[in-house]
Amino acid sequence: MKQKLSIIKIGGNVIENKTELSKFLTLFARLEGYKILVHGGGKLATQLATKLGITSKLVGGRRITDSETLEVITMVYAGLTNKNIVAALQANNCNAIGLSGADGDAIQAHKRPVKDIDYGFAGDVDGVNSQMISKLLNASLTPVFCAMTHDGNGQLLNTNADTIASELAIGMSELYETTLYYCFEKKGVLMNVNDEDSVVTAIDSEKYQKLLNDGIIADGMLPKLENCFHALHKNVSKVCIGHADMLNSENKLFTTITR
Amino acid sequence: MKQKLSIIKIGGNVIENKTELSKFLTLFARLEGYKILVHGGGKLATQLATKLGITSKLVGGRRITDSETLEVITMVYAGLTNKNIVAALQANNCNAIGLSGADGDAIQAHKRPVKDIDYGFAGDVDGVNSQMISKLLNASLTPVFCAMTHDGNGQLLNTNADTIASELAIGMSELYETTLYYCFEKKGVLMNVNDEDSVVTAIDSEKYQKLLNDGIIADGMLPKLENCFHALHKNVSKVCIGHADMLNSENKLFTTITR
Repeated sequence: MKQKLSIIKIGGNVIENKTELSKFLTLFARLEGYKILVHGGGKLATQLATKLGITSKLVGGRRITDSETLEVITMVYAGLTNKNIVAALQANNCNAIGLSGADGDAIQAHKRPVKDIDYGFAGDVDGVNSQMISKLLNASLTPVFCAMTHDGNGQLLNTNADTIASELAIGMSELYETTLYYCFEKKGVLMNVNDEDSVVTAIDSEKYQKLLNDGIIADGMLPKLENCFHALHKNVSKVCIGHADMLNSENKLFTTITR
Repeated sequence: MKQKLSIIKIGGNVIENKTELSKFLTLFARLEGYKILVHGGGKLATQLATKLGITSKLVGGRRITDSETLEVITMVYAGLTNKNIVAALQANNCNAIGLSGADGDAIQAHKRPVKDIDYGFAGDVDGVNSQMISKLLNASLTPVFCAMTHDGNGQLLNTNADTIASELAIGMSELYETTLYYCFEKKGVLMNVNDEDSVVTAIDSEKYQKLLNDGIIADGMLPKLENCFHALHKNVSKVCIGHADMLNSENKLFTTITR
């Protein structure tokens, strides 16, 4: 029997709100069993870039990671945000260790190939060092990942935090029974987008098809759900999506997705 | 028999020079046995603070770490500098893992008490988590420390990199036969300050007294040597001071200090 591992991703909306972040970190610290936290960056990086007079280049709505932007991201994601989360978790008796994908060669990636668009220092994940991460977990450490990878040739790369979380979940499934939690601004997949409490609590492949046909899953939820099923098809046991407080065991209102 | 552990501290003069840093990291990566790197911050933090319009407050020649300065330090030391060093070591086949004192509760400290001067978020070291660091070493990882500690209550603190290196060497001496290497801008302790090659290659307590009496050790070297003997009296086996290239086994011109 494999041991259980929870991988939790929190986004910018939690990171940017000190009260919400503090509440979330208390819940995360209390969570039993092996666990890994993945955090996004939020607006702090954009704010710092603006202060430094670095203008974000957008192509087709996507930000281009040039070398100056990569430096800002490294400072904010791997430095300021990551270390403050680690220090706060330590204060909650959770033995956190902050990591980028370069640390311990945890997440290998390659610079996204240039086709129509050069995304700059954006990394597409090649693999996860599950053996090394497992050693950290066995040393009673709780890895806290920022959204950065490396190419093994000395180049840091910017990788989407949702992708980091799902790739970690997929990679760690080799050794653990893995559950992936995506915390975002809604309580889960909603039947009625105007009713916050109309959460679809359970989705499997069949239900997913029905929700797709009925147009319930559309827009921003579509890539999120595709990402979830991608992870489930790569041996992740379960994906939960909902508010950050879904880690509270009393809260039952979130969406659980299984194959 | 305890196993050997090398703790190497590099300062701003190496960090700021890309060619020197790259040469040093190649040497460090080749070094055999258990090893730990400690890096200072250099002028990058001051440069970033200036760009952001944060003015460094100096009292009695010492910089005061206010909350804005602490944020800058966290971004530069723990983010930009630390992660680029880690990525470069990975490219040299050294499985580096970047750490602040908060990560894995590696280095506990307390905010320096206010007497005549409030130094702000400056941390005085209380202890080193030698068991956790030993687990990382046993997992074939090479810790790379930036000059930051934490108080266990969620507060990150700024601690001098020389102090981090000596406290790590002292703390790890419990489990390892520890050698501490201080890399700086000179080849070692010089008999004649105007002759770069007049290195005193070996110093023990007796020789130290003689050099002190003769006025050979003075000014900036005085606190450095005091720091070395403090470490030696706390069970560190040996302290070497010299240029960053003293890690090259062909280079014999540096100062070795023993009790």
